Amino acid sequence: MKEKVFKDPVHGFVYVYEPLILELIDSKEMQRLRRVKQLGLSYLTYHGGEHSRFAHSLGTYEVTRRILEGLDKKGQLFLSKKEQLLALTSALLHDLGHSPFSHSLEGVFSLRHEAWTNKIILGDTQVNKVLSKVGSNFPKEVTEVIKGIHSNKLIIDLISSQIDADRTDYLLRDSKAIGVSYGNFDLERIIRVMVPTKDGIFFRKEGMHSIEAYILARYSMYWQVYFHPTSRSGEIILRNLFKRAKALYKSGEDICLPNEFTNLFEDKLLVKDYLNLDDSVLFFLFQKWTSSSDIILSDLSSRILNRSLFKRIEVDSNDDDLYSQLSSLLVEAGINPEYYLELDCPSDISYDYYQPNSNHKKNPIYLVDKRGEKVELSQISDPVRAVAGKRVRYNIYYPRDLIEKVEGLAERFKNLLDSYK
Amino acid sequence: MKEKVFKDPVHGFVYVYEPLILELIDSKEMQRLRRVKQLGLSYLTYHGGEHSRFAHSLGTYEVTRRILEGLDKKGQLFLSKKEQLLALTSALLHDLGHSPFSHSLEGVFSLRHEAWTNKIILGDTQVNKVLSKVGSNFPKEVTEVIKGIHSNKLIIDLISSQIDADRTDYLLRDSKAIGVSYGNFDLERIIRVMVPTKDGIFFRKEGMHSIEAYILARYSMYWQVYFHPTSRSGEIILRNLFKRAKALYKSGEDICLPNEFTNLFEDKLLVKDYLNLDDSVLFFLFQKWTSSSDIILSDLSSRILNRSLFKRIEVDSNDDDLYSQLSSLLVEAGINPEYYLELDCPSDISYDYYQPNSNHKKNPIYLVDKRGEKVELSQISDPVRAVAGKRVRYNIYYPRDLIEKVEGLAERFKNLLDSYK
Amino acid sequence: MKEKVFKDPVHGFVYVYEPLILELIDSKEMQRLRRVKQLGLSYLTYHGGEHSRFAHSLGTYEVTRRILEGLDKKGQLFLSKKEQLLALTSALLHDLGHSPFSHSLEGVFSLRHEAWTNKIILGDTQVNKVLSKVGSNFPKEVTEVIKGIHSNKLIIDLISSQIDADRTDYLLRDSKAIGVSYGNFDLERIIRVMVPTKDGIFFRKEGMHSIEAYILARYSMYWQVYFHPTSRSGEIILRNLFKRAKALYKSGEDICLPNEFTNLFEDKLLVKDYLNLDDSVLFFLFQKWTSSSDIILSDLSSRILNRSLFKRIEVDSNDDDLYSQLSSLLVEAGINPEYYLELDCPSDISYDYYQPNSNHKKNPIYLVDKRGEKVELSQISDPVRAVAGKRVRYNIYYPRDLIEKVEGLAERFKNLLDSYK
Amino acid sequence: MKEKVFKDPVHGFVYVYEPLILELIDSKEMQRLRRVKQLGLSYLTYHGGEHSRFAHSLGTYEVTRRILEGLDKKGQLFLSKKEQLLALTSALLHDLGHSPFSHSLEGVFSLRHEAWTNKIILGDTQVNKVLSKVGSNFPKEVTEVIKGIHSNKLIIDLISSQIDADRTDYLLRDSKAIGVSYGNFDLERIIRVMVPTKDGIFFRKEGMHSIEAYILARYSMYWQVYFHPTSRSGEIILRNLFKRAKALYKSGEDICLPNEFTNLFEDKLLVKDYLNLDDSVLFFLFQKWTSSSDIILSDLSSRILNRSLFKRIEVDSNDDDLYSQLSSLLVEAGINPEYYLELDCPSDISYDYYQPNSNHKKNPIYLVDKRGEKVELSQISDPVRAVAGKRVRYNIYYPRDLIEKVEGLAERFKNLLDSYK
Repeated sequence: MKEKVFKDPVHGFVYVYEPLILELIDSKEMQRLRRVKQLGLSYLTYHGGEHSRFAHSLGTYEVTRRILEGLDKKGQLFLSKKEQLLALTSALLHDLGHSPFSHSLEGVFSLRHEAWTNKIILGDTQVNKVLSKVGSNFPKEVTEVIKGIHSNKLIIDLISSQIDADRTDYLLRDSKAIGVSYGNFDLERIIRVMVPTKDGIFFRKEGMHSIEAYILARYSMYWQVYFHPTSRSGEIILRNLFKRAKALYKSGEDICLPNEFTNLFEDKLLVKDYLNLDDSVLFFLFQKWTSSSDIILSDLSSRILNRSLFKRIEVDSNDDDLYSQLSSLLVEAGINPEYYLELDCPSDISYDYYQPNSNHKKNPIYLVDKRGEKVELSQISDPVRAVAGKRVRYNIYYPRDLIEKVEGLAERFKNLLDSYK
Repeated sequence: MKEKVFKDPVHGFVYVYEPLILELIDSKEMQRLRRVKQLGLSYLTYHGGEHSRFAHSLGTYEVTRRILEGLDKKGQLFLSKKEQLLALTSALLHDLGHSPFSHSLEGVFSLRHEAWTNKIILGDTQVNKVLSKVGSNFPKEVTEVIKGIHSNKLIIDLISSQIDADRTDYLLRDSKAIGVSYGNFDLERIIRVMVPTKDGIFFRKEGMHSIEAYILARYSMYWQVYFHPTSRSGEIILRNLFKRAKALYKSGEDICLPNEFTNLFEDKLLVKDYLNLDDSVLFFLFQKWTSSSDIILSDLSSRILNRSLFKRIEVDSNDDDLYSQLSSLLVEAGINPEYYLELDCPSDISYDYYQPNSNHKKNPIYLVDKRGEKVELSQISDPVRAVAGKRVRYNIYYPRDLIEKVEGLAERFKNLLDSYK
Repeated sequence: MKEKVFKDPVHGFVYVYEPLILELIDSKEMQRLRRVKQLGLSYLTYHGGEHSRFAHSLGTYEVTRRILEGLDKKGQLFLSKKEQLLALTSALLHDLGHSPFSHSLEGVFSLRHEAWTNKIILGDTQVNKVLSKVGSNFPKEVTEVIKGIHSNKLIIDLISSQIDADRTDYLLRDSKAIGVSYGNFDLERIIRVMVPTKDGIFFRKEGMHSIEAYILARYSMYWQVYFHPTSRSGEIILRNLFKRAKALYKSGEDICLPNEFTNLFEDKLLVKDYLNLDDSVLFFLFQKWTSSSDIILSDLSSRILNRSLFKRIEVDSNDDDLYSQLSSLLVEAGINPEYYLELDCPSDISYDYYQPNSNHKKNPIYLVDKRGEKVELSQISDPVRAVAGKRVRYNIYYPRDLIEKVEGLAERFKNLLDSYK
Repeated sequence: MKEKVFKDPVHGFVYVYEPLILELIDSKEMQRLRRVKQLGLSYLTYHGGEHSRFAHSLGTYEVTRRILEGLDKKGQLFLSKKEQLLALTSALLHDLGHSPFSHSLEGVFSLRHEAWTNKIILGDTQVNKVLSKVGSNFPKEVTEVIKGIHSNKLIIDLISSQIDADRTDYLLRDSKAIGVSYGNFDLERIIRVMVPTKDGIFFRKEGMHSIEAYILARYSMYWQVYFHPTSRSGEIILRNLFKRAKALYKSGEDICLPNEFTNLFEDKLLVKDYLNLDDSVLFFLFQKWTSSSDIILSDLSSRILNRSLFKRIEVDSNDDDLYSQLSSLLVEAGINPEYYLELDCPSDISYDYYQPNSNHKKNPIYLVDKRGEKVELSQISDPVRAVAGKRVRYNIYYPRDLIEKVEGLAERFKNLLDSYK
């Protein structure tokens, strides 16, 4: 097969040498990812964050390919052709099961993307057909790699460790897209200090500073982008919007739901239905709902479409008392706190720029010195140890525009918040 | 008002100092542009091309702001505060009337985006309300600037000339997004050599090479990106898809059209309806249509969703004879050439990296030397003169996959094409 | 005066609006800095590190100018025109007294660059003449700012604090020149969160992450570039070379010293002599010395010219015993350890990516929240606190090539080193 | 051998896999290139242009290596291991014979760098010793490749054609160093469309736009950087300075010449002497000469050191009459026109962004279509044809500062110039 390339803003080019990879890219399940934004609602904060999971999937494949190529050049690639293909396909397909705005939707509809990736790869899909050409067990192997339970620890570390092709690609891609510098690190050097072993990938100790820079880039991106309160505000609204829609639906109200969505709201989604979910169909729903007779459904839909977000106030603790008092104020004013008040703590989200404990689902980072001795990164890096712990912050989100419409409410709201500082 | 900024991948930051600008950005008409891709279907070729017209609109505003700031620093800004605001708002709103995939849709539904920009700014919209705060005639002035008919030639040249804030922003933005180097040029230097006059903006002759580099960047981007045959293939499919849908609708067939679209297909679209059009609702339609009983509608919809494009062959001329013979071949095989065969010439698209003639709707570029003598750019620049002319290329687009399914057709098709070379 | 610009790889353009600044740039004392490398011998490790102190001086000026412009736009610039000029000239001239390879030479010849900057600005120089046009006391004020003892704390913080125009420019410039990503941070954002006060410059708390990224960039650059053992090896050789030359000179040996250098070796350097020192004249000396009859002088000179460096071994402690045993081995083999063996600890160099204690000669970084409360950065940032401490490493440098020439020596050397691990 | 890398600002990393390459890099002849600026005096215009020929030599090697790697991946590399080594070493060594400021010096001392490259490679040098390890004829083969007369046309095209590793590296490197965007083009794509043949390297026709972008980048860099009048002014001064020094020397005047330079001034330079020439030793000379009793020698030396350049006026033609009249004016005022007046035409310099004629010493660029038909680039590219011709400009250079010191001279000078416009 002739070399085939895709121009890429992060890696220059994505190179494909295997017809199988090309067929996977051309499958409709992969093409769907073009219609799912990589960063969900982050574009509400950073307007550059409009790239898709498709671009990131190609990028993850390409990073994996470059690692394999790098190891090969150094004569350290002890994977068979088929194992290499397993690594490459797993990289390409690792996000296949993402729903649109998965962080917000997963809670409401229990759509764990890992489970759906599994179903799509094993189900009656184009992707499955292509993978099965390699061997009848190959699709299953791919899911095992993605889940981190395959027996080949080296391949798992490539795709699903705390410094894998997935994480390195999205850091570089997200920071480039939104135009910030701090997600940057030296991927080429990190690849150069990799030491592949039967127990996974270790890193030469002399490369420690490059890996530190990677962890610190993660740390910066988490606090400045992934947890940004403005995007978080959008996510809260989106979640509450679906919570509302589901509640209405369950109680038998007509929410003008197109047939396509019935199975979703009935919690009996099939792979076929799932593959029809993308950002577009949700936005079509939101537009429909802006003219709903349910005022909450209509208001929250408009908010997402028109970026009319909740305001945020940082509070010192997650004192339930504060929340219930604010709640009462809203209830008095006829505003439903279930949809319009949120006490949020980003550290509840599964975030981990780096988790050194070895019982984490993803492997920690090990350095090896010239004598072959192995040490976990945070043991010898002060700044990594410093960020590895949790940082907890509490925020209250609420619709300032609504509150200002009710006479005196804004002032009482403010006084209450001040009294808790 | 406190300075407000938006992080931007091209300009670093977009700076806002006027509350009016912020209100415009927050209007629902501007927010709609987040859901309209700047490059239409170019993402089918360059997966990085996923950015929206919203990002470009902010960018055009920012370039305008920087030009004004640059002129001010040099003591050459002889625009009143209100005129500056007119320039800034016109820059921000210049693309407000773009439909999704406007290049493909405009032909089918006669949706000229310039006309809709006009209607939206003058209609019953949030944008109109905000603009009217400045003065009852202000919205009209903004439309005059955008249409290039305002009496202030300097402002027109800023927003709508052959080297304006619009073109400079999209060149830089598009090339950065897809990751190519050739759309790059030195905007800061070009701003520095601007000479504002009552007759518009001229450029100091010593800056000629920077402007040459800008024109050559346009030339490169047109041939390598904007006219790329793969994207063009997608556009042809999209246009034929809508042509088909409209034909079916007009003939009374049921195409499962949601109510929201009736006015579009009846050619009596209101501003209100128009503002509901965005990429998402079209993609929802395409998904619906993939299960249409009309095989052409369903096939073309799948092609867009799953990137199953027509192939292209370059031909030496636009010989009608070739087209009609290929057409006959398809008809014989039961393939409708009206939707599945296209003789395309990119130069039919309104393209102009640079048009030196002064009766063009956008002003040409004039250089002035130290003695104040004025000369049109292509008069003294060899490479600009070389690219200013038209380059004509002809391509045939057709569905190779369908043709290969009909026995012997592929070969007869090929022979015919070869005989015309 | 017309705007004048210098194209710059870091800032795009350096803008000059004051004739005084232009005259300073054109002075011969500033032009000398074109012949003094910013990074000394770092080019031995990173071949891209060949830029001069002249470029960095322009950059420091430009960062200062942008900060002033940024504060002005926000209406927070409460400096008079003359105070602004004081800030700009101090920024431009802050490195005027650097000798070539100052880190290595300063020890041997007690050429403290701060003292020489002072002497040049106050001496009979072009720079002094230009500055004196502003007022007879102006040169002195400039030296006070550079020394950090001027009464205007705001100006001092701009030029000489732990996050000043000097440090921000060189981080960006050095990392760009050598091609590494980790020296990068968001200067524009840091400027935006500056809060100028009578007590100096504070930073809005919401900008904390940008400042963290800056400190972490410093940390990365220190350990990966500024302390790099290969460059350090060059510095040690250079220092020993001058130590040797001086020793020979003092003992009356003929070291073919051109007249120009007599005053340097006599420790009675005048400003006039000092201004003749640059990288070129030293390299001319080294070339001369390669044919010296003193074998140490000639060998060390060749090493610098031909990049034949000492090797490094990291050791666990600075055990004097190890050093003296290695020393004895060398003596036995006829190699003079005074010039050929070095136990080095980078933390002996005055390094501080960040020093939070307020009695440091440069002010620490303070954040202020909305209520105006002030807190020192490391108090609330875990990663900054983590890197603020000292990290100590010990290295032994020695000429492996010489050692390998003496039979058995390499092995004994290695055994000894191993026994200390 | 373990992979060895050099961090590079243009290519990320330079990779070395052959011990021979490393030995060549470590040779003193290669290390000398660290002390010769790639862009000569261009730093007088663009302060970022301070990089050395050493960096460019590594870069040329790396581009060659990537081309070979790219061809190998596509299965098109039909060079033996030894031929590959020949290509790589020739790339690395192609500029070995450059003197400092070769463009200015070559005229005065007839130091053709091509001839010296030859002498160094074949002479009694470290480089020769290393190359001879491959075979006694290998050094000679390297010189043949560099001179473009080797029998292997493919290797010649890699190193010495109109689109070779040399030109592509310096365009990218120079533009990055000085911070301009227009020297940029897509090297990776150009490598991808290369078609290696026995007759040299051709390019797939579909890559034409990438190659156009490369030629246009050359065109932009020539007019905006390489021919920049400010740098040109410096070069003229430097040439005249050496002309003066040589004239004085020949007439027996004492110009305080260190012994090291005698052979240069006697025109009997040996390889050994030549290798001692670098930027540093020249700058040491200039400093010496600033205190020469010859007022011209001293003045021109100061001008180079302190960037006190000649002014330029563009004139319409190279009318000898104008020159001789200006000359007479200067003579009257006691200023020697031989050293202080220059009528300069950049097109006299051997410049060629692209020369399509096949009898040029470097091969033109050929495109091949799918049918294998070959066409020279300028035949089908309008913009390339447009720039391929010569553009002639005439400039007069003169010392405005001196002229202004003579009463009335400036006015008469100006009147004369005006009368010729």
